[in-house]
Amino acid sequence: MKSHRKSLSIHLNERMGFVNITREVEKAVAESGVQEGLCLVNAMHITASVFINDDEHGLHQDYRRWLEKLAPFNPGSDPAQGGYLHNRSGEDNGDAHHKRQIMGREVVVAITSGKLDFGPWEQVFYGEFDGRRDKRVLIKIIGE
Amino acid sequence: MKSHRKSLSIHLNERMGFVNITREVEKAVAESGVQEGLCLVNAMHITASVFINDDEHGLHQDYRRWLEKLAPFNPGSDPAQGGYLHNRSGEDNGDAHHKRQIMGREVVVAITSGKLDFGPWEQVFYGEFDGRRDKRVLIKIIGE
Amino acid sequence: MKSHRKSLSIHLNERMGFVNITREVEKAVAESGVQEGLCLVNAMHITASVFINDDEHGLHQDYRRWLEKLAPFNPGSDPAQGGYLHNRSGEDNGDAHHKRQIMGREVVVAITSGKLDFGPWEQVFYGEFDGRRDKRVLIKIIGE
Repeated sequence: MKSHRKSLSIHLNERMGFVNITREVEKAVAESGVQEGLCLVNAMHITASVFINDDEHGLHQDYRRWLEKLAPFNPGSDPAQGGYLHNRSGEDNGDAHHKRQIMGREVVVAITSGKLDFGPWEQVFYGEFDGRRDKRVLIKIIGE
Repeated sequence: MKSHRKSLSIHLNERMGFVNITREVEKAVAESGVQEGLCLVNAMHITASVFINDDEHGLHQDYRRWLEKLAPFNPGSDPAQGGYLHNRSGEDNGDAHHKRQIMGREVVVAITSGKLDFGPWEQVFYGEFDGRRDKRVLIKIIGE
Repeated sequence: MKSHRKSLSIHLNERMGFVNITREVEKAVAESGVQEGLCLVNAMHITASVFINDDEHGLHQDYRRWLEKLAPFNPGSDPAQGGYLHNRSGEDNGDAHHKRQIMGREVVVAITSGKLDFGPWEQVFYGEFDGRRDKRVLIKIIGE
């Protein structure tokens, strides 16, 4: 069994945003030499996501608006005012911990004949919900 | 290490629906000859899900109603009217890309002694949110 | 290839609650002897979740309130009164099947140099949405 590990560094200047990391994942698969196996890609931070969907700008704006509705940003810590108790810890990112649960922490992708075994529109994205700091994505590949 | 790949073809006549694919996944595990390993099952399309829950008709109707509330179907592209910017691309399935994020893209199931290592009620479902076209599910098994 | 299987027993006295199971998962990784591989941790029940986020009490209270808003507990079976058709089956846990979809069934974690390959704040939690009965969590490790 072979294994390969790689981490990506990501820094967004906005609070919320999506970055297509498919090319980086493909590169890691090629480096691994794995022909048949599984590729895990996960956010190493708990206010960020890795997910698979379409690389379409309008959709990403829709996601932003929708996530803001499901878990609105609010720096306060009084739930009666829409705040998050989490923010009592000195953070203002309570909303980000919720948005990340909707979009997910990780994806697992099959590797077949040395390539990501994807449907026609599948692309891997990093989703940031508390940006303006350095974050990391982990890629772990096992197989043969 | 052994590996096995199989894809399922699915075509629903409705826009939204759920199909129990547990038997097909079990068959793929048997074909693989894997006794101890992992089984990935994922939608190859970005308006569909694979998830594990109960095979209970009332629950599936509840899911439909709930997903319609969280991300209502709207063929328009004006967010002020409940539409999705994604639909400017000529699609009418903006809602489906959101529903799929709630229900998830994939499941990973343990294989133990040659069988899916499931709790008493776990069943694997394909979830369709933009039906009336051919879709595929990928099963990838690795182990020994 | 090595593999290791372990199940955890969990019993919460409340309907909804979160339990940090990171130490148990670390123990299973140590027992497995796997240096490089993948670790699957999943709920074996369909009204429970395994997820990764912060071990912060305020956040967990926020999650409780948020999940209750997205899928309110209601023992009834009339959707027009906020009930769940699922509850016609004699259950009162329709809400729990919805909460679990938001928080997810499973996590897959990389194992590197014999340890869970985690970012600084990642902790593994069992999420219970229909407690007061015995439940199980499955840990399955493969690698070398």
